[in-house]
Amino acid sequence: MNDTPLAQEGQAEYFFLMFGFEIKKRSQKSRARIGVLKTSHGEMETPTLVPVATQAVVKTLTSEEAIRTETQILIANTFHLHLKPGEKFIKSAGGLHKFMNWPRPMMTDSGGFQVFSLGFGKDHGVGKILKGRSRVKVKQGDQPKLLRIGYDGVLFRSPVDGREVFLGPKESIKIQETLGADIIFAFDECPPPHADKAYVSKSLKLTHRWAEISLRAKSASRRTKQAIYGIVQGGRFKDLRKESARLISSLPFDGIGIGGEFGKNKKEMSGIISAAISELPENMPRHLLGIGHPEDIIPIIKAGVDTFDCTLPTHYARHGVAFVFGGSKTVRLDMNKSKFLYDKKPLDPKCACEVCAAYARNYISHLFRAKEITALRLLTFHNLFFFNSLIEKIRRGIRKGVI
Amino acid sequence: MNDTPLAQEGQAEYFFLMFGFEIKKRSQKSRARIGVLKTSHGEMETPTLVPVATQAVVKTLTSEEAIRTETQILIANTFHLHLKPGEKFIKSAGGLHKFMNWPRPMMTDSGGFQVFSLGFGKDHGVGKILKGRSRVKVKQGDQPKLLRIGYDGVLFRSPVDGREVFLGPKESIKIQETLGADIIFAFDECPPPHADKAYVSKSLKLTHRWAEISLRAKSASRRTKQAIYGIVQGGRFKDLRKESARLISSLPFDGIGIGGEFGKNKKEMSGIISAAISELPENMPRHLLGIGHPEDIIPIIKAGVDTFDCTLPTHYARHGVAFVFGGSKTVRLDMNKSKFLYDKKPLDPKCACEVCAAYARNYISHLFRAKEITALRLLTFHNLFFFNSLIEKIRRGIRKGVI
Repeated sequence: MNDTPLAQEGQAEYFFLMFGFEIKKRSQKSRARIGVLKTSHGEMETPTLVPVATQAVVKTLTSEEAIRTETQILIANTFHLHLKPGEKFIKSAGGLHKFMNWPRPMMTDSGGFQVFSLGFGKDHGVGKILKGRSRVKVKQGDQPKLLRIGYDGVLFRSPVDGREVFLGPKESIKIQETLGADIIFAFDECPPPHADKAYVSKSLKLTHRWAEISLRAKSASRRTKQAIYGIVQGGRFKDLRKESARLISSLPFDGIGIGGEFGKNKKEMSGIISAAISELPENMPRHLLGIGHPEDIIPIIKAGVDTFDCTLPTHYARHGVAFVFGGSKTVRLDMNKSKFLYDKKPLDPKCACEVCAAYARNYISHLFRAKEITALRLLTFHNLFFFNSLIEKIRRGIRKGVI
Repeated sequence: MNDTPLAQEGQAEYFFLMFGFEIKKRSQKSRARIGVLKTSHGEMETPTLVPVATQAVVKTLTSEEAIRTETQILIANTFHLHLKPGEKFIKSAGGLHKFMNWPRPMMTDSGGFQVFSLGFGKDHGVGKILKGRSRVKVKQGDQPKLLRIGYDGVLFRSPVDGREVFLGPKESIKIQETLGADIIFAFDECPPPHADKAYVSKSLKLTHRWAEISLRAKSASRRTKQAIYGIVQGGRFKDLRKESARLISSLPFDGIGIGGEFGKNKKEMSGIISAAISELPENMPRHLLGIGHPEDIIPIIKAGVDTFDCTLPTHYARHGVAFVFGGSKTVRLDMNKSKFLYDKKPLDPKCACEVCAAYARNYISHLFRAKEITALRLLTFHNLFFFNSLIEKIRRGIRKGVI
């Protein structure tokens, strides 16, 4: 490892980087703020949802449609794209934006979450640094098979073709640079939800080590226009969250991600996120990884989160669930239910989306029951538009001083 | 059965019917013609493809997208819609057009083809009028289980919920009237491909009987704006085709469908279609049911077909096959092949569709290999646009006198 201080090394990059974050308004009632996040592919107003485009596509939609849902930014998945099709193909196509015809800002995550939490990691000693190679019997399936965790990364067997793949901070940054998103993330370790404090504390050391390696790996590449976010871990332990937040924000990252598990319930979640954010500098953008039930959105925005990615609106859509406004609350409608076959109303009579303008519940319910693919698209479109509208309302609330 | 002559009874309907067919240009080189077919939901230029919307949706697309593929008319499926969701739901939604937000003309087939050819019919005596009830063991699956064929229709077990369903000409017309398409079809029997001449000849008598019952069932309903087409059968036997064409065109139908099997190869197909058409009046629109490989299109148009429905462009799309122009021929590209991951060209560099404008082969190939639903849509859109463009070229050829 290079001994040049990271803080000094990192500065040189800002020269090449079209990235900035400006806070336009701070709430007097909470830590919520209105901001503008600028990237090489344009700017967005925060707080905002970052819909998930795991395999370089918002599942069931085209990129033009994702724009029509008022989506400002997408997050693609380093782990999935590395395995299939491989970043070299995406680079040969001109990078992620050109590949998927997405003109707006993009993030890629680091792949850490997928390696640790999608795989058999939890059952095979993730977080314990294994000295020898612990071979896990490989079965067919779509889960990565963890083979070994070391100080420099993780060896696992690809769920796509069975080959051994090594992914660590250096590899993750290289892949993310090749993919070409506007915002990339440091490689982190995600401890499993049931991990005890000793486990999480040990895991945190690895995450912090990997944060530094990620920064150095990125600093070595001068020609990038990408911003890099560090990731705060620490599980459900507020003191570990604060420790992690202090350490990560002391490094020359462009923004801060907050990852991992946040306790048993919504209240605990807000407390843990607040603990982490209390140690973060005011002027840096904050991204919350993988959180965003409709009922979570106001609390996380009040806690001071600027951006957050979540599969919920798209995932639920593919299972037939529409999110709609029901008075002041968000209500879920299961379109698989036959009662909707007689219902001539749009999904949400107050929704301004093109699906609600064109189709009624009776038709969408029929399409779900008939297992028609078009059903998945119509709900995906509506749900993303709904979430984006909900967050636009919250932004208005912050501007007016009521949130 | 009512004894009023059908020809006389049918006339009254024209009063209520917004339907007409005008031939604008006849080829000097073949039986091809340019026409305008007028319906209650607007008119279309013929010859034209009728894409398939089996369950009231062009699989994977929205109705707005189907319009953007230059599709002029769709055909939905009486058999499928009767079983799921049931015509009463579609009527309560305001009819097929409103239900699926499709403003242009629509056809429904009669359901005969599905009852006879999707089911186990071939193996259980279809075409032989069974005296007793021949129970077929019911297994789980999506195929109708044929129970009994009689002079008035067919009893089968629904593949959706196992209940016994009876479908004959009266029932088919009633369902089609409830669905509300602009053009409906008489209920016919489709003999299996391997049927011998004695079998087809006997089957033809049933089809002709059902054609008359279909017309009477429709005539009894005065308030309809629907046109009804009779169906010519007769399998691969030219004399039976001619006999059927003479009989069907002697009845007061608004147009003529040509259904069933057309022999072993393309040449035989053209001969059989020509034999049927040689006995049809010049001024009636002719619809060919379920035919339309790209290489078939010129021959069937030259034989004098005005409209034809085909699942091919949409079905192949969902299996990864794009149709593109390759010189003067139509070429098929299998987007599942990894060689396309490096290919930056659009599906068809000469294609004016929105998919070819926005996405390259590398991306579409990735989406297929990653099993992303968006892939199915992109190819479905392109293939329909491609077929519609191909037929527009043929129409230009007829106008110029080169076809």
